[in-house]
Amino acid sequence: MSHNSFGHLFRVTTWGESHGPAIGCVVDGCPPGIALSEADIQPWLDRRKPGQSKFTTQRREADEVRILSGVFEGQTTGTPIALQIENTDQRSKDYSDIATRYRPGHADVTYDLKYGHRDYRGGGRSSARETASRVAAGGVARQVLTALLGEQVRIRAALVQIGAISIDRSRWDWAETERNPLFSPDAGIVSQWEELLGAIRKDGSSIGAVVEVVAEGPPPGLGAPIYGKLDSDLAAALMSINGVKGVEIGEGFAAAQLQGEQNADPMRMKNGKIVFESNHAGGILGGISTGQPIVARFAMKPTSSILTPVPSVNREGQEIDVMTKGRHDPCIGIRAVPVGEAMMACVLADHLLRDHAQNGWPTTSR
Amino acid sequence: MSHNSFGHLFRVTTWGESHGPAIGCVVDGCPPGIALSEADIQPWLDRRKPGQSKFTTQRREADEVRILSGVFEGQTTGTPIALQIENTDQRSKDYSDIATRYRPGHADVTYDLKYGHRDYRGGGRSSARETASRVAAGGVARQVLTALLGEQVRIRAALVQIGAISIDRSRWDWAETERNPLFSPDAGIVSQWEELLGAIRKDGSSIGAVVEVVAEGPPPGLGAPIYGKLDSDLAAALMSINGVKGVEIGEGFAAAQLQGEQNADPMRMKNGKIVFESNHAGGILGGISTGQPIVARFAMKPTSSILTPVPSVNREGQEIDVMTKGRHDPCIGIRAVPVGEAMMACVLADHLLRDHAQNGWPTTSR
Amino acid sequence: MSHNSFGHLFRVTTWGESHGPAIGCVVDGCPPGIALSEADIQPWLDRRKPGQSKFTTQRREADEVRILSGVFEGQTTGTPIALQIENTDQRSKDYSDIATRYRPGHADVTYDLKYGHRDYRGGGRSSARETASRVAAGGVARQVLTALLGEQVRIRAALVQIGAISIDRSRWDWAETERNPLFSPDAGIVSQWEELLGAIRKDGSSIGAVVEVVAEGPPPGLGAPIYGKLDSDLAAALMSINGVKGVEIGEGFAAAQLQGEQNADPMRMKNGKIVFESNHAGGILGGISTGQPIVARFAMKPTSSILTPVPSVNREGQEIDVMTKGRHDPCIGIRAVPVGEAMMACVLADHLLRDHAQNGWPTTSR
Amino acid sequence: MSHNSFGHLFRVTTWGESHGPAIGCVVDGCPPGIALSEADIQPWLDRRKPGQSKFTTQRREADEVRILSGVFEGQTTGTPIALQIENTDQRSKDYSDIATRYRPGHADVTYDLKYGHRDYRGGGRSSARETASRVAAGGVARQVLTALLGEQVRIRAALVQIGAISIDRSRWDWAETERNPLFSPDAGIVSQWEELLGAIRKDGSSIGAVVEVVAEGPPPGLGAPIYGKLDSDLAAALMSINGVKGVEIGEGFAAAQLQGEQNADPMRMKNGKIVFESNHAGGILGGISTGQPIVARFAMKPTSSILTPVPSVNREGQEIDVMTKGRHDPCIGIRAVPVGEAMMACVLADHLLRDHAQNGWPTTSR
Repeated sequence: MSHNSFGHLFRVTTWGESHGPAIGCVVDGCPPGIALSEADIQPWLDRRKPGQSKFTTQRREADEVRILSGVFEGQTTGTPIALQIENTDQRSKDYSDIATRYRPGHADVTYDLKYGHRDYRGGGRSSARETASRVAAGGVARQVLTALLGEQVRIRAALVQIGAISIDRSRWDWAETERNPLFSPDAGIVSQWEELLGAIRKDGSSIGAVVEVVAEGPPPGLGAPIYGKLDSDLAAALMSINGVKGVEIGEGFAAAQLQGEQNADPMRMKNGKIVFESNHAGGILGGISTGQPIVARFAMKPTSSILTPVPSVNREGQEIDVMTKGRHDPCIGIRAVPVGEAMMACVLADHLLRDHAQNGWPTTSR
Repeated sequence: MSHNSFGHLFRVTTWGESHGPAIGCVVDGCPPGIALSEADIQPWLDRRKPGQSKFTTQRREADEVRILSGVFEGQTTGTPIALQIENTDQRSKDYSDIATRYRPGHADVTYDLKYGHRDYRGGGRSSARETASRVAAGGVARQVLTALLGEQVRIRAALVQIGAISIDRSRWDWAETERNPLFSPDAGIVSQWEELLGAIRKDGSSIGAVVEVVAEGPPPGLGAPIYGKLDSDLAAALMSINGVKGVEIGEGFAAAQLQGEQNADPMRMKNGKIVFESNHAGGILGGISTGQPIVARFAMKPTSSILTPVPSVNREGQEIDVMTKGRHDPCIGIRAVPVGEAMMACVLADHLLRDHAQNGWPTTSR
Repeated sequence: MSHNSFGHLFRVTTWGESHGPAIGCVVDGCPPGIALSEADIQPWLDRRKPGQSKFTTQRREADEVRILSGVFEGQTTGTPIALQIENTDQRSKDYSDIATRYRPGHADVTYDLKYGHRDYRGGGRSSARETASRVAAGGVARQVLTALLGEQVRIRAALVQIGAISIDRSRWDWAETERNPLFSPDAGIVSQWEELLGAIRKDGSSIGAVVEVVAEGPPPGLGAPIYGKLDSDLAAALMSINGVKGVEIGEGFAAAQLQGEQNADPMRMKNGKIVFESNHAGGILGGISTGQPIVARFAMKPTSSILTPVPSVNREGQEIDVMTKGRHDPCIGIRAVPVGEAMMACVLADHLLRDHAQNGWPTTSR
Repeated sequence: MSHNSFGHLFRVTTWGESHGPAIGCVVDGCPPGIALSEADIQPWLDRRKPGQSKFTTQRREADEVRILSGVFEGQTTGTPIALQIENTDQRSKDYSDIATRYRPGHADVTYDLKYGHRDYRGGGRSSARETASRVAAGGVARQVLTALLGEQVRIRAALVQIGAISIDRSRWDWAETERNPLFSPDAGIVSQWEELLGAIRKDGSSIGAVVEVVAEGPPPGLGAPIYGKLDSDLAAALMSINGVKGVEIGEGFAAAQLQGEQNADPMRMKNGKIVFESNHAGGILGGISTGQPIVARFAMKPTSSILTPVPSVNREGQEIDVMTKGRHDPCIGIRAVPVGEAMMACVLADHLLRDHAQNGWPTTSR
């Protein structure tokens, strides 16, 4: 058991605080002989990097990843891969006033209740900065998936809702997510979102969002019932992202309103393979992938750091008001998009190896 | 790693198929000296038992649990607790026609794709019958929580939505959940639900539902960031229940629509302890319990076994239509209520022990 | 983490006390499609069964194993395999006098110090009876090894030393181990051992022994450095057997006396494969199998239950003398032979699956 | 599961190759509020550092440890502790000739068989350099033990045998181990050992050794039967050290020659506590610590790198002779002394936390 690890056979252990010298992770269990260099990981980190639009924190981090072990002459060796990212723009002084004040919605109070002693600078371990390690690990996971399954697997995410404004799914275009800074698959909604975010930012407020992650082309057979179900592991992985309050697969909560015949995914044969005529299940049945796209969504709460004063208490038990200045994302859902992708990649890589263990390699022949 | 275990320090390993001689589980890590007998577990199993209303499967199981180890003279000994429930009403013949037919929405096709060889009788391992083992383990977890924390912790669940009909939260009454067979906390909605379910059953159809699980009186400090967050483990636990398609904590998906100040839970001091003035967070901040009630909800899809024929295929790759006769629940959400409670109890017991390891015992002094 | 499980991908969880209704285990992670029935497991249990010679305990147990899950139509399904053995000859009364007396050399005192409450009957959980579950799991592991690797892998053990009397290795004959009740590979030593054991038994004393376990024909590549080394896992597995005080691989402690050139195993090519000209390493280099026979030895202490009174204390803190009557093995090393084999089989099956996960399937092509 | 982690609740994950930019580890699960700085770890690393006598490798490493996370204002925070040591004296050229040659006794051949692709420089991941990470983690473990148990626990190791020359136990003096570079507790044997090692080194040969590790003052109750026995975990931990071929506890293999009454440890009462009159058991009964000193020994094989040519093969399958020049320890047993201590410290810290989880905190009140 490890509190700071996820995955079982593709196992990632992350470490580091927001304002320590560096953050990083160790990826253990990666198969040998897989092409890997910093250049395979950096683009994903760049995608998540702060300061890329006016709607994300203005903290500026180079976020340059360094591989310290596990790779030799451009290929993985099967030994642990240590990844490290230096913290360069920490500005500890900005946070000196929160050393003893519990910011509502943040983990300040619970870390203190649990541990008694915490690194309060920038949220310390509970900072969203930790997600950079996830994205780096996700870069490794993508290399594994490509090496073992070919280009068939494609993992992408998009923002599908900000506040009460949802995208129009009929306009979904993956290419569009690369073109706008909000990762919207619907070009038509971007200006509305920007307007909303502008107002939110002006008010010193923040807003929630929903992210959708899709893995296309997964092999069938991934997932290990009963307690290593693919959807169960995805739920844990996505819920572990800072600020996530809900996770759903396929129809998700909407399934509660459906009747059996509405939710059924009919099967037909096509070129000797089973195909499904719909995907209400989100690509998972009984905890095992069907081969259809795996579809997951998660809800992000609004950033807790806002300019509106909120009643709170401090370490000494005094009642205070807390208002959080500083460099914050008005909508943390935006930067969660690449994080969601990374978690999907890691979960799939893990389950691919788990399936190999029990059922042989490659899974692709199914 | 174990595909069929959950929890880390309060660790449950379940086994058994729907139509095998028995099902059961092994609970490892239970502290010694805790009062435990079959009588502590049986009531929870009885609550989940099929055949109790016309809206649950008519399969009749005694569901009598037997403790085979780990308890001596009425107390746990710290060694593994083996629990066993015999299968008595299997009627294997009912299922002979599905040996080679893939029932849409069921795990038939994915188990076959993954394992090649499966016990198809009644869904085999993928049957909801497995959840009886969870409920039994949950009974042990409740004893642990009571022994270590006193009566302060109370874990209950309720059905809050069937199809499009949600309860009126202003009428919430926990006592009511014990009085109606649908576990509704809102007496006023029961007749509407019964009417809906009656119509659904008559049509040979099925309907989805939403269950809410609440743990009152938990100690603060449970949950181990970053990857053993309490909400992350709850999400995994609840998502692993057959038919669950979504999980949320506190505001859940509704948080996506909120602004920061709407979602904040102000803190005040009361009798020297921190109290929260609202609970949008669902009792968890940064993956750690705040001491407020822990609130989780999960969405159940409609039962996949329906009388309406759905296009499917069989093992030989022929296109067929599948219509599932037999004894099924029109709304599996109903019987999921005690299962959800059991998962909450197990997750809390596990995290209580995990917290003890790192932070000392008892947690209650906070 | 689980205190009562071993292995990672071929994972065995055992439960049960000496005088409870039954003992058993759950084997999780077994690949699907492997032939398995009670008849594949029973012979190994029969080999370990008490009461087969005058030098083993006269407790009589049928030790009949029952498979309760995970097997359908004669083949494993990939789901957990529950194995159960009823306790039939418990004679609890024999042990009533030890409820509060700490037998020297036994776990009575430490279980009480740790747990405060224990099942003292026959040693409860600490009884050697638990090893029947290991042997049953070993039977499953052997089926896995045979199914995945063919008949090439052969796991056998022998007694090589009782007290100060060691076998003559030049007379080693595996067939002989099946002919004498002491599992000696050296026919010439049997009468000396029987004479020694006869005297020991007559004196109400007991004697230690050394067991050697050999796995012939393993594939190279098993073992996962640095902390899942094959030898490290074997050491843990063998040391976990009741009464084991030492474990060695290949030359073992004798290697401490050797110079580098004496301990080297020269390599040559033969039919396009690497062959070793000696096996000082015991088939493992850097924690990974070489393909040579894997050779492990373990030392068993003398049975602690003896007729000679030994100063001790009781639960109340009074000084007493303890003399243990009852049905005991004068040399527990004898019945440890099939247990050692079982542990080797389980460790190899586990590492075979672990290697598959990272390096593909089958391992045999190397 | 993680191949490169050990421990469960005090969990250490190591990474790094002999000639990569750095090596290090992540320690997860450390309780919060424990005093820790580089100065607490460095002395143990210095003790293990190469180049301190003519009998250890002349490779010169600063071996300066850096704490990158998990510590704030001099105290642990309960979050993962990342430790890092730069590799400064790698001299990769020295090893260029072994890129394709399999050095007998080394892991070259097995890593290649298993992974196909390996970092051959200086042994890569299989280099004894990895043990620096263990020693660093051991430094953290010692701080945990001191913080939770006080100064009562003292973990020390000594060299007790080189080749055929064993110490005289009647002259055992722990202070002496700090005075001579061979960690001998017997001042009288040092000159004999130096003479032997001088001759061995002159011949370009190497020699085996035996190390004894003792933990004085442990609390009773550590160890989690059946498969988390303290001796089982110690065996795994010590056997995982490069070059170890045997592990024993207490009497170890000598117990095989003893009769029950010779091996018994009589118990008496003293000041209301149970005391043992001897310690044949090495401080462990039934896998649980008794409170007596925990005594473990391990056998190190002679260094495989010798000047004598040994028949071998290369990657291309050609038969060659291998003679290993370079900077090697003639007796790797010497530098294994602090490594053995570190493993003992880590295992005890892990079991202390495991015991807390199930049995409460502190363990010391027993």
